[in-house]
Amino acid sequence: MTKAIVLGAGMVGSVMALDLSQDPAFDVTIADLRPANLSAAAARCQGRVKSLQADLADTAAVKKLVAPFDIVCGALSSRIGFQTLRAVIEAGKNFCDISFFAQDAMDLDALAKQHGVTAVVDCGVAPGMSNMAAGYAAEYFERCDTIAIYVGGLPRERRWPFEYKAGFSPADVLEEYVRPSRIVDRGETVIREALSEPQLLDFPGVGTLEAFNTDGLRSLASTLKSRVPTMIEKTMRYPGHIELMRVLRHIGLFSQTPIEVPGADGGTARIRPLDVISKLMFPLWTYEEGEEDMTVMRIVAEGLKNGQRERITWDLMDIYDQTTRATSMSRTTAFPCTIMAREVAAGRFKMPGVVPPEFIGMQPGMLDRVLGELEARGVKYTKRVEAF
Amino acid sequence: MTKAIVLGAGMVGSVMALDLSQDPAFDVTIADLRPANLSAAAARCQGRVKSLQADLADTAAVKKLVAPFDIVCGALSSRIGFQTLRAVIEAGKNFCDISFFAQDAMDLDALAKQHGVTAVVDCGVAPGMSNMAAGYAAEYFERCDTIAIYVGGLPRERRWPFEYKAGFSPADVLEEYVRPSRIVDRGETVIREALSEPQLLDFPGVGTLEAFNTDGLRSLASTLKSRVPTMIEKTMRYPGHIELMRVLRHIGLFSQTPIEVPGADGGTARIRPLDVISKLMFPLWTYEEGEEDMTVMRIVAEGLKNGQRERITWDLMDIYDQTTRATSMSRTTAFPCTIMAREVAAGRFKMPGVVPPEFIGMQPGMLDRVLGELEARGVKYTKRVEAF
Repeated sequence: MTKAIVLGAGMVGSVMALDLSQDPAFDVTIADLRPANLSAAAARCQGRVKSLQADLADTAAVKKLVAPFDIVCGALSSRIGFQTLRAVIEAGKNFCDISFFAQDAMDLDALAKQHGVTAVVDCGVAPGMSNMAAGYAAEYFERCDTIAIYVGGLPRERRWPFEYKAGFSPADVLEEYVRPSRIVDRGETVIREALSEPQLLDFPGVGTLEAFNTDGLRSLASTLKSRVPTMIEKTMRYPGHIELMRVLRHIGLFSQTPIEVPGADGGTARIRPLDVISKLMFPLWTYEEGEEDMTVMRIVAEGLKNGQRERITWDLMDIYDQTTRATSMSRTTAFPCTIMAREVAAGRFKMPGVVPPEFIGMQPGMLDRVLGELEARGVKYTKRVEAF
Repeated sequence: MTKAIVLGAGMVGSVMALDLSQDPAFDVTIADLRPANLSAAAARCQGRVKSLQADLADTAAVKKLVAPFDIVCGALSSRIGFQTLRAVIEAGKNFCDISFFAQDAMDLDALAKQHGVTAVVDCGVAPGMSNMAAGYAAEYFERCDTIAIYVGGLPRERRWPFEYKAGFSPADVLEEYVRPSRIVDRGETVIREALSEPQLLDFPGVGTLEAFNTDGLRSLASTLKSRVPTMIEKTMRYPGHIELMRVLRHIGLFSQTPIEVPGADGGTARIRPLDVISKLMFPLWTYEEGEEDMTVMRIVAEGLKNGQRERITWDLMDIYDQTTRATSMSRTTAFPCTIMAREVAAGRFKMPGVVPPEFIGMQPGMLDRVLGELEARGVKYTKRVEAF
């Protein structure tokens, strides 16, 4: 038996635990501080996982916690993702993580090598599968010219006026709407305004979506920069959402600079507009119980193959799972991580250091293997290759 | 010489004083508390009017102030309009007013009759000329079926994202976007949501505008209700503005109900969302020096004339005056009032009581006379009569 522990029993962590627990070779434990999360995860896994209440913000506790396990999976808030990565590495445990933190994971690469730990990071859908496909393309082409990643988590039902709900922290979504985005343009890293360069894309079964620049290249902007001169990453929404967000931003509602307004009980109040719009808008962005989401992704890589210009397009269109009541966002994010956890635990994938998923995609056969496992879980990517 | 006093030296008041001062039969004084307003008005009138500094919020002071004058014009804030109307009536002075206050002026009708005072109220563009045309139509037709009033004050240049600037208090504009609107529908007063029933209208030289329900019938909803079964009043903006305002209202940003947000300096702040959006948005809604505005109005009256169905349409399209640097909104509002002030002062119009402008339009020849005087001042209404 392989002993696995999942850190974080939120939506994604509980789906990770469910997936691993369906493998008879795995003995699965899930850890979280919040009892409500633990019991929801236990219910989802129908009693096949063990629960452990633990303060995952305490790195010393994390080190002790993971000691008895063979493999660790991470599904933590962005706030504590980096410190947990360090703790797991220092504990000498192989790690597969989807925690979307702001720090550069590669800063811990030497530490991981020193401990002989394989630490796969950003291993969800995007970042995650998008990186894997990018790594594959960089390796596949004699000369890879461009990689474009388009991804969006969306409600299936479009409701006025936002036609959007947040599949993860709404505050992180608004952060995407203001943070300048780094893209790679003909060999140079350039900065584009968030929400800029809107572009319409059609998806069968979905309709037309609108893609706009977000700061989502992450590790790709450095790992592949010398090999792929042009790389962009865009987030997708139903058309109109971007315009609305541009207006709210223009009004100043996404600003964190304090302003003074009359207090409701007299006097003057100093507040940040972002706190006001968050308070009012986030409840409108919250999925209702059972409300269906979907995940749409397109990755387009162009380059030279056998002296001929060729384009590879991967498309994903995944929908809320009525059976497990797991959101599409949680399934498409959790499965790449648990699939890689199995590969690492079984010794089929071994690469001491911090491993962004593009390094996995560069390994012969790995992308096909992961895509096959995803399809077995109902998450189906289609691939199209065309000369042009 | 007729001695006239204008109460209020804001944008509209200063244009009133300018207009009256160009008549050699008039000796004009303008009163305000703010020296800056008085000196701006004096400059506009090139020294041909006298200035008086006075606290117009003090009704006892107003009564003394108007005592030496033959005719009084009012261009005051909505806040003190009603109390000033009462003060001027009690002082026994004929009055022509454009102050857009919330109270019902007809409550002072008996008082005005008792003092033998002719007090013309709401005598601007809309309310004002719209009422005059409505009164004309009610009298002209054997049976007047419908009166529809469409009016908008707009910037000539359309700038993203609002394509709107406020020609008067932005707070009053937002009030129009939330206050339920009363319309008269087949004899019944019915309530429509503000910003509802958007409708596109084309104006030569302007393009397409979007009209939506606002609560602008005012006195017409009672004075003409027994004679005209259907009356609507709509405000016009460039298309798209309404949708944006509907979204901001939906988010809760126009709400006056306090919410709690984190204070910028710690703790919790209780604030009204309306105060936050006002603080952020109103600077974006302010006309820049010399920025051109325009006033667009269409009044459509339908009914039976000589047994035949007939439609009368009055159109106004008025633009900022480069010569006087007076906004279109101030000119189209001030001139109906000063024109009527001359009529009243000369004894050509006499109707003791509170007089909404529809009563003027019902008098033979009065509408044509006022329209002729407006045209002499460059404010041109076109009238179209068609059978249908």
